[in-house]
Amino acid sequence: MIKSGENFRTIWLKPDDAGTVQIIDQRKLPHEFKVHDLRSYQDGIHAIREMLVRGAPLIGATAAWSLYLAGLHSPAGSQREFVQKAAIEIGASRPTAVNLRWAITRMLAVVDAADTDDIVPSLLRAAQAICDEDIEISRAIGRYGLSLIEEIAERKNGNTVNVLTHCNAGALATINWGTATAPIYFAHEKGIDIHVWVDETRPRNQGSQLTAWELAENNVPHTLIVDNAGGHLMQHGMIDLCLVGTDRTTRTGDVANKIGTYLKALAASDNNIPFYVALPSTTIDWNIDDGLSEIPIEERDTAEVSHVYGEADGSVFAVNTVPTETRISNFAFDVTPARLVTGLITEFGIFPASESGLAQLRAKGESQGS
Amino acid sequence: MIKSGENFRTIWLKPDDAGTVQIIDQRKLPHEFKVHDLRSYQDGIHAIREMLVRGAPLIGATAAWSLYLAGLHSPAGSQREFVQKAAIEIGASRPTAVNLRWAITRMLAVVDAADTDDIVPSLLRAAQAICDEDIEISRAIGRYGLSLIEEIAERKNGNTVNVLTHCNAGALATINWGTATAPIYFAHEKGIDIHVWVDETRPRNQGSQLTAWELAENNVPHTLIVDNAGGHLMQHGMIDLCLVGTDRTTRTGDVANKIGTYLKALAASDNNIPFYVALPSTTIDWNIDDGLSEIPIEERDTAEVSHVYGEADGSVFAVNTVPTETRISNFAFDVTPARLVTGLITEFGIFPASESGLAQLRAKGESQGS
Repeated sequence: MIKSGENFRTIWLKPDDAGTVQIIDQRKLPHEFKVHDLRSYQDGIHAIREMLVRGAPLIGATAAWSLYLAGLHSPAGSQREFVQKAAIEIGASRPTAVNLRWAITRMLAVVDAADTDDIVPSLLRAAQAICDEDIEISRAIGRYGLSLIEEIAERKNGNTVNVLTHCNAGALATINWGTATAPIYFAHEKGIDIHVWVDETRPRNQGSQLTAWELAENNVPHTLIVDNAGGHLMQHGMIDLCLVGTDRTTRTGDVANKIGTYLKALAASDNNIPFYVALPSTTIDWNIDDGLSEIPIEERDTAEVSHVYGEADGSVFAVNTVPTETRISNFAFDVTPARLVTGLITEFGIFPASESGLAQLRAKGESQGS
Repeated sequence: MIKSGENFRTIWLKPDDAGTVQIIDQRKLPHEFKVHDLRSYQDGIHAIREMLVRGAPLIGATAAWSLYLAGLHSPAGSQREFVQKAAIEIGASRPTAVNLRWAITRMLAVVDAADTDDIVPSLLRAAQAICDEDIEISRAIGRYGLSLIEEIAERKNGNTVNVLTHCNAGALATINWGTATAPIYFAHEKGIDIHVWVDETRPRNQGSQLTAWELAENNVPHTLIVDNAGGHLMQHGMIDLCLVGTDRTTRTGDVANKIGTYLKALAASDNNIPFYVALPSTTIDWNIDDGLSEIPIEERDTAEVSHVYGEADGSVFAVNTVPTETRISNFAFDVTPARLVTGLITEFGIFPASESGLAQLRAKGESQGS
């Protein structure tokens, strides 16, 4: 679902070159589809920090592949130590997404369990498995979410189902298919008349640059709007369902996601529109009760706000939109309280965003050996 | 308050040239301060439609001056007819702001009342009076709004008062001082420690390009944020007061303002933060009961969303940020229901946003001969 008609993933080992992991430089989209090489774990950190890759699941996968690269370049005799040190650095690359940490923990467990002196083959298998599993998770989320869309389509007698999404919880945020977009792709493939309102998602424009791009690649009808517009559309019955991703969900159902998600959840609540969050269970932080006070919210470079990337006369560059004297603040995420979330769509089913809902999810996950 | 240290207005008759009305081409800010000439009523329509001028009071004033220019160029013997025809064209230039219509009605009343064959001197006096009065209205709004800020400053024991504003209801939206900004300028002049969070205000970026610029010109501490960020700031106690303008208010207190205002009002309500709207009483539409169903919401050119103006290497131009296959929708305003508005700050005092509050306002206005 990433490039139309091609079996692309967002991250992969370069064919015939086990020393190179490849990604799409997502900063260049939609203007240029550029494959970028990672040859060291430091390259991986750079890709995460500078947002060549983004999206909680893909950040996790990139961390995993970075640890594989760390293993590859680790000095003989001190492989474990080198990889563990790299893990600390990788873990610090972005603070909000929890499955960055989850992926690192899983890779370090592999390091601990590896019984040979050469841990690289184990790291390779684990990174590959994380990616393969992520695709299966997206497919499961897609299947569960599809049932919601089918219900709405039926209620509307086959009239267009209008979904609002914020940021990119798409194929580009995962390995393929996406979280919030997986149900949309499944519905579209099934022939359901579906249309997506795409929030631009300032400051990084993941909506206009990534979600719009991948929906266009897959011929899914969609319309771009500024982040300010969603409330108006909901007031006028133009949205049937909100569907977003998350970077970290608490065990009580609070959801950290791209800045501005909370505002859309408020509008959905005010207009009785279902607001669902799609997530792999790996984005749940079981240690946190209160999202508002306990989830660290990353503040990013203010140039993300002042400088807007775009294309003019065939070149892509940034223009400054802000007076030089003006101070800027750039919080990257906000927290939507559980009370505003209709439900959580996970690989184990759809659960209420509450402590008991999350407990059900955990029990189901454990019973499936996850 | 428009250019630091200079007694500027946003619109004026060119000294020693009664055939030219001058404005600031606000599309060029903050990168360039460019004065633009209007020599015909068609120039005025162009300035309104293309947003060289914007903001409900300034749109009204520009309509008034455009009718003066129409009078100036009207054929002898059919001045009235020519001006009345021009009024219809000017009235169609933008649909949402109600004091465009109010200014035209007032100017046409002058045309009707003029008892000489040459109506131009009357049109000149009326356009001038509309501008002079607008400044007095802004000052009165500033004084009433100041009392709110003083209360908060006192409650906070002199700690910084943090105000959020959306779009530009500033000096640049009026003739001078602004509506939402007048209380801020008055508080700043009085030495109150005030700081303004400035919403970028996509798609036209009136926050980053106009509000930030005029606050910087006047040395008012301020920080630019993306439109997505206000909810997060409110959740974390970083905003004490929301203060916005309006393009049209119903007699029941519903408020049409720049798209996205509704989302901020929801967040203010969710976090018990006062949400005030500052307005000249001329922006009230006494004929409308229900803002959501009755106020026409302008849809503007989609290039406003796809193309972002900014500066690079010393030139100002637009870059495209959107895939070419992607459809765009661009609603310019939304309606905030009266229930979410704490109060209306007008030139006659502060009133509840309700039918009875508006009736009190009207009674007070009539008793003052307005």
